[in-house]
Amino acid sequence: MQEHTVKSYAKELRRLRELVARMGGLAERQVADAVAALVRRDAELATEVMARDVEIDALEREIEAFCIRILALRQPAGADLRLVVAALKISHEIERVGDYARNAAKRSVVLAQQPALGSLNGFQRMARLVQENLKGAMDALVNDDAARADEVWAADQPVDEVYNGIFREMLTFMMEDPRNITAATHLLFVAKNLERIGDHATNIAETVHYAVSGEALTEERPKADSSAFAVVRPPV
Amino acid sequence: MQEHTVKSYAKELRRLRELVARMGGLAERQVADAVAALVRRDAELATEVMARDVEIDALEREIEAFCIRILALRQPAGADLRLVVAALKISHEIERVGDYARNAAKRSVVLAQQPALGSLNGFQRMARLVQENLKGAMDALVNDDAARADEVWAADQPVDEVYNGIFREMLTFMMEDPRNITAATHLLFVAKNLERIGDHATNIAETVHYAVSGEALTEERPKADSSAFAVVRPPV
Repeated sequence: MQEHTVKSYAKELRRLRELVARMGGLAERQVADAVAALVRRDAELATEVMARDVEIDALEREIEAFCIRILALRQPAGADLRLVVAALKISHEIERVGDYARNAAKRSVVLAQQPALGSLNGFQRMARLVQENLKGAMDALVNDDAARADEVWAADQPVDEVYNGIFREMLTFMMEDPRNITAATHLLFVAKNLERIGDHATNIAETVHYAVSGEALTEERPKADSSAFAVVRPPV
Repeated sequence: MQEHTVKSYAKELRRLRELVARMGGLAERQVADAVAALVRRDAELATEVMARDVEIDALEREIEAFCIRILALRQPAGADLRLVVAALKISHEIERVGDYARNAAKRSVVLAQQPALGSLNGFQRMARLVQENLKGAMDALVNDDAARADEVWAADQPVDEVYNGIFREMLTFMMEDPRNITAATHLLFVAKNLERIGDHATNIAETVHYAVSGEALTEERPKADSSAFAVVRPPV
């Protein structure tokens, strides 16, 4: 390859990382705003979050088209090829994160008109944790940092623990008073959205680890989500 | 390229389609068995479904490694490149379908020990619809059939409609008797899993359409999931 071609190829790969990191940053903000809208009962902010999701979707399409162009024109190999495949996968994960944030925002619109249940501290804690993990995964990608990716990959357990607490709390609210049922159900789904966002952050970290190191993380990830087995009994 | 190379390349692409279709077939079966376990209150079958999910995960890794090898060694272009990128994306979607089926199965284990709620006909109907859509998407991929992909892409609305009905039904069960709350909550999440599987089937159809035709489906997909806005009132 000529020096010019090599330089512009390196520039393209840098731009690819930046696009993915920008998409990740947008998704982080969506998660933060969705939960802020929930906690402040702010239907206007929730509606903004829902409307902003198209930006994330557009970035996914841009990244995919860019990846296909790089694959077709540069025929990357080795670490460069792994980066392009990782960008495709990660942009898809981030798109899902955006969908979950939009869905949480949508439910906040209804919840703003329902009775308030509890402090919602758990939701803020979950949002903070998954945002940190998303940010960590993006930092790992931009800095080619497999160790940082591993940290994120192992950090999902606290998210699951907060989720399990919310699950039990919401079922208890439902049992105390049937008028809580609609609100508690929507809050359960918001908590589930945040828990899934946490899962996507660890998937992204796994993909970054592979892109950077060339090795797959094959051991089972530490999981603490026991809610699928949870049984809560009504008060006697 | 020499004739021999051309032939083995064509064989690789055929094998890639077959691997993805096999993965899709496994996921279909997981969905069917997860719902069968739910309806028959069969914790043993549910446990089998949970254990079988590793086969789907292993196929995803095999497909990804195969795609990377094809990209590195064959440097595909045009429709072949689109097929390889589509295979990467679709295998990831199917892996998610597998996760949702596993999660539904996990909840069936708890549900087998909870009071039975309603006929569960809606769950069987949803499972049938999403299985048909998964199968349709796989047929479209194997037969290079963009029109079939479009049909699947447009067929998610009935899934959403059944889901909305189940959402309201479960909230009503909860309001009637607090002892129904645990079971109704798990059933709500199972219904949500099936609804998400339906979404993934349409995503796959969208990707097949693009791989086959080279054109993206950009119009908004018809959606009927209004449950995020649903409010159900307790009986007076």
